[in-house]
Amino acid sequence: MSTPSIVNRRDLDFLLFDWLRAEQLCTRPRHAEHNRATLSAALDTAEAVARERFAPLNRLCDEQEPRFDGERVHLPPEVGDALRAYCDAGLLAASHDFELGGMQLPTLVAQACGSLFKAANIAISSYAGLTQGNANVILRFGTEAQRQRYLPQLLSGRFMGTMALTEPQAGSSLADIRTTATPLGDGRYAIKGQKIFISAGDHELSENIVHLVLARLPDAPPGVKGISLFIVPKFRVRDDGTLGPRNDVNLAGLIHKMGWRGTTSTMLSFGERDACEGELIGPPHQGLACMFQMMNEARIGVGMGAVMLGYRGYLAAVDYARDRPQGRLPDSKNPLEPQRKLIEHADVRRMLLAQKAYVEGGYALCLYAARLVDDQHTHPDEAQRREAALLLDVLTPIVKSWPSQWCLAANNLAIQVHGGYGYTREYPVEQFYRDNRLNPIHEGTHGIQAMDLLGRKMVMQQGAGMAALAQRMSQTIEATRSDPALRETAEAVRTALADLQSTLAVLRPVLAEDPVRGLANAAVFLEACGHTVLAWLWLEQARVAAPALTAGPHADEAAFLRGKLQACRYFCRWELPRTQAQYALLRTLDGTPLDMEAGWF
Amino acid sequence: MSTPSIVNRRDLDFLLFDWLRAEQLCTRPRHAEHNRATLSAALDTAEAVARERFAPLNRLCDEQEPRFDGERVHLPPEVGDALRAYCDAGLLAASHDFELGGMQLPTLVAQACGSLFKAANIAISSYAGLTQGNANVILRFGTEAQRQRYLPQLLSGRFMGTMALTEPQAGSSLADIRTTATPLGDGRYAIKGQKIFISAGDHELSENIVHLVLARLPDAPPGVKGISLFIVPKFRVRDDGTLGPRNDVNLAGLIHKMGWRGTTSTMLSFGERDACEGELIGPPHQGLACMFQMMNEARIGVGMGAVMLGYRGYLAAVDYARDRPQGRLPDSKNPLEPQRKLIEHADVRRMLLAQKAYVEGGYALCLYAARLVDDQHTHPDEAQRREAALLLDVLTPIVKSWPSQWCLAANNLAIQVHGGYGYTREYPVEQFYRDNRLNPIHEGTHGIQAMDLLGRKMVMQQGAGMAALAQRMSQTIEATRSDPALRETAEAVRTALADLQSTLAVLRPVLAEDPVRGLANAAVFLEACGHTVLAWLWLEQARVAAPALTAGPHADEAAFLRGKLQACRYFCRWELPRTQAQYALLRTLDGTPLDMEAGWF
Repeated sequence: MSTPSIVNRRDLDFLLFDWLRAEQLCTRPRHAEHNRATLSAALDTAEAVARERFAPLNRLCDEQEPRFDGERVHLPPEVGDALRAYCDAGLLAASHDFELGGMQLPTLVAQACGSLFKAANIAISSYAGLTQGNANVILRFGTEAQRQRYLPQLLSGRFMGTMALTEPQAGSSLADIRTTATPLGDGRYAIKGQKIFISAGDHELSENIVHLVLARLPDAPPGVKGISLFIVPKFRVRDDGTLGPRNDVNLAGLIHKMGWRGTTSTMLSFGERDACEGELIGPPHQGLACMFQMMNEARIGVGMGAVMLGYRGYLAAVDYARDRPQGRLPDSKNPLEPQRKLIEHADVRRMLLAQKAYVEGGYALCLYAARLVDDQHTHPDEAQRREAALLLDVLTPIVKSWPSQWCLAANNLAIQVHGGYGYTREYPVEQFYRDNRLNPIHEGTHGIQAMDLLGRKMVMQQGAGMAALAQRMSQTIEATRSDPALRETAEAVRTALADLQSTLAVLRPVLAEDPVRGLANAAVFLEACGHTVLAWLWLEQARVAAPALTAGPHADEAAFLRGKLQACRYFCRWELPRTQAQYALLRTLDGTPLDMEAGWF
Repeated sequence: MSTPSIVNRRDLDFLLFDWLRAEQLCTRPRHAEHNRATLSAALDTAEAVARERFAPLNRLCDEQEPRFDGERVHLPPEVGDALRAYCDAGLLAASHDFELGGMQLPTLVAQACGSLFKAANIAISSYAGLTQGNANVILRFGTEAQRQRYLPQLLSGRFMGTMALTEPQAGSSLADIRTTATPLGDGRYAIKGQKIFISAGDHELSENIVHLVLARLPDAPPGVKGISLFIVPKFRVRDDGTLGPRNDVNLAGLIHKMGWRGTTSTMLSFGERDACEGELIGPPHQGLACMFQMMNEARIGVGMGAVMLGYRGYLAAVDYARDRPQGRLPDSKNPLEPQRKLIEHADVRRMLLAQKAYVEGGYALCLYAARLVDDQHTHPDEAQRREAALLLDVLTPIVKSWPSQWCLAANNLAIQVHGGYGYTREYPVEQFYRDNRLNPIHEGTHGIQAMDLLGRKMVMQQGAGMAALAQRMSQTIEATRSDPALRETAEAVRTALADLQSTLAVLRPVLAEDPVRGLANAAVFLEACGHTVLAWLWLEQARVAAPALTAGPHADEAAFLRGKLQACRYFCRWELPRTQAQYALLRTLDGTPLDMEAGWF
């Protein structure tokens, strides 16, 4: 059995402990039984299960796509075994209460554990991630009876979960969903409608599948304010957790995707032939709000998945470039001298360094967001909890989108480093590239995230979120600008932040007066803002790495820290400058795409 | 049978006739029997065969990958039928002499015909394109006997061809090939060695397969100056063109790729078990020079393939965006109003306009290069022939690389416009994206093209190639700067050209003194230079479109011309500014990737 390298554990430890001080979270009452050793032990367990049980199945899951025989969905049996190993290790409930069978880990560390499974096998990890998301909705919005009926089953893996939002005519525009929920008079509802792109919507990996379904009540107002959320299990569940009769939730078809093939993607029909019963969760007509309150975590999950696919590609590309001899350097005069390793060529180093900047930067971003989730829930100071919530709101579209764009770009470069071999299915990098292409689409497309960032997050509470972000960035700049090793980068981040703020000063009044024009170039804003945030997070990493390097560490550690500083330099010299043209364009309120008439294409 | 839209024929006619004045080529003796009507008829024929015979097989070729049963390679039988229709229409020999059974079309028009097959089915068209390339080598470097033995068979499609360059240890570094050719004393050679990634290396689509093989003679000097070129047929060919005994060219295995699956990609072994006879073509030890003299056309072919895959995705995305309702505009207050079409959303227009700018710009680039091939060979004025050859030399790395990068980016956007549907195999765009990913790799990777452009093309003949290019660009700027509709773009191109030249002034001495450092950031130079050239070609298109629009054309034509002007504006406002940061970086001679040590990754 192969045990591929799924992450640079030194990097993860650097981010978690040297930078984000994960062990400090153990001073909070919820995590009082943890310490650095227990956190590391959880990571060790996760890494071992991910490497040994998930990673070896990655190609298999791609090649043996789920198959529907008209009655049952077939997956390779190894998938179920891997998920059982994951559940048995307690990882499904890593962040949940001890009393629910969980480990009560900080979100930061639970997300880090989860990241290793995404790295090892994004398709299998999706079954787990969706179940966690499902359980979290029930935990937060369910009644006591609903929690008792579903949570123990979900958190043990006996049941698995889905989120059934999208319909054939309503993807980005959830306001237009048509699935209906008709009261049956006894507190239950008859659900009727079609859902599409429902991941993990059918399989036999668990005894039951719990769908969280968005639907409309008969008296629902139109639009987003008339959508309610329902629990709709495949098999009805009795109060003692045992299974009742089958609900009429039927697989209308499997969707065949470019990548991420190991996760079933389904069309489901509810109540088409027979009774499909559901129970309301959360207040009527507020289903979308319930879902969106959980969406921050789901979107961190998407960003993290994108990072880890990029990270796997990066590690594979570094390994390949170290081993593969090809060509000589431009100053070579002697064709008889041995070929050099790929990694000695400047252009290969460029491609590897870009990947490193994207994937380690993206990892920092996602873990930073996970730490904000902890602060939002468990920080002892209320003002800090509020600030964390505010920052998380602002950063979420970036956490979702930036890795989806740039860690996909990293996968592209990983293929390129491999040359022709990278384009073959004999090497893993082409699959990472195919798998990662989903991330800019699901859980809100790139364009939706852009509208959310510029149209909502930048203006909410009179711009308080952006102000909080700017304050944190300024703190980092202040802390680094006098260090000769960091001054250049600190100055670059300061300039980009000023550019961001002056751009917002131009855009804000337009957003209020003419939202169509104000939001027209939101995607450019998202990308420029994302690069600015990432430059700051690279400066943050350099702030930690620079003094550690001057302390005279051993050779391996020094090389690691020098790599961090070089990647920071790369990001600020090679990546950040692109934002200048983007901010300049935004300030002109350019209408070239907006004014392009449909008939001109 | 579906007849998908494979190209915007109005655009192709605009580029060929309104802009590049293809009919003027008919004043040259070689094309004297042609006129605008015969050129258009050839395009009509190509379009019909491509749409009706090639395009409907595109998904089939992806799904029914070539299969080797240990003896034979199996392809869907429809592939052979499609190729026969193509050959029967005379398209394989479109640009060849009447006496060879060809149509003696200008290269420009022959490439345009070929582009339609690439659009329709890149995998099938590869068998044809490789055969053409193979025939062209034999035509140019073969002896009279070799021409007679092979050309009629190749140009009728009875034989097909390959180019067998790459070996497992020698891809980008062809200097390191090990295949040997041992004289047999009678003018023939025994070939022995392994080749990999040989497209169309085995199949039963033709009676015979003619491999052009790079190998070393016993007395060969080391490196690139000791490589010779051999004709190695699968079945030996008698002087009358009939088949002799089997040569020992054996399929060692099929390679399974991410995309472009309909073209067999093979590992071949030559002379491993038995005799494999080849004949030398061209002078001994000058095989690489022979291959590279043909490479300009092969690289236009790669660029064109990338364009057409991007173009297909663009057309599919426009169609989808026109049809698909989703969401409302940002100023909508009424959730009951009907959903708007995707194409009404500014961000979708941005994605479509970017695709249009990439694919129509790339098409202009490739056709411009094809026109240079004509001028190089048939222009009545010798100085013009020399200038065309010089320009073609300079532009070739851009023609190969720019579409491979940006039309792949267009495919990425085409998926995004389709949302979740774009990620499924039920829609065509994911295949275009997978197919197009090969183009930055084969026929010289992106990095190899970058070294070629900066290290060779920019300095050859004391920079005469770049000077000729700058002169043409300046002519366009002069011709447009006083037109109010074009002034802004003309100024933008002027600035970018000045930036390019000042960057070269910094780089040239470094290239001479320290080539390792001078070439370290060559990829950035390639990309900046490519965008500068494309901005010029957009200005060229606008130069033609603007007066045509003021002439008061009918509504459809006016919409088409407005689209051209808007895409030009888009390119200069949204795309070209990125070069500023690239040129600035290049002028600093930044060494961040170069100085990144292998141990720091």
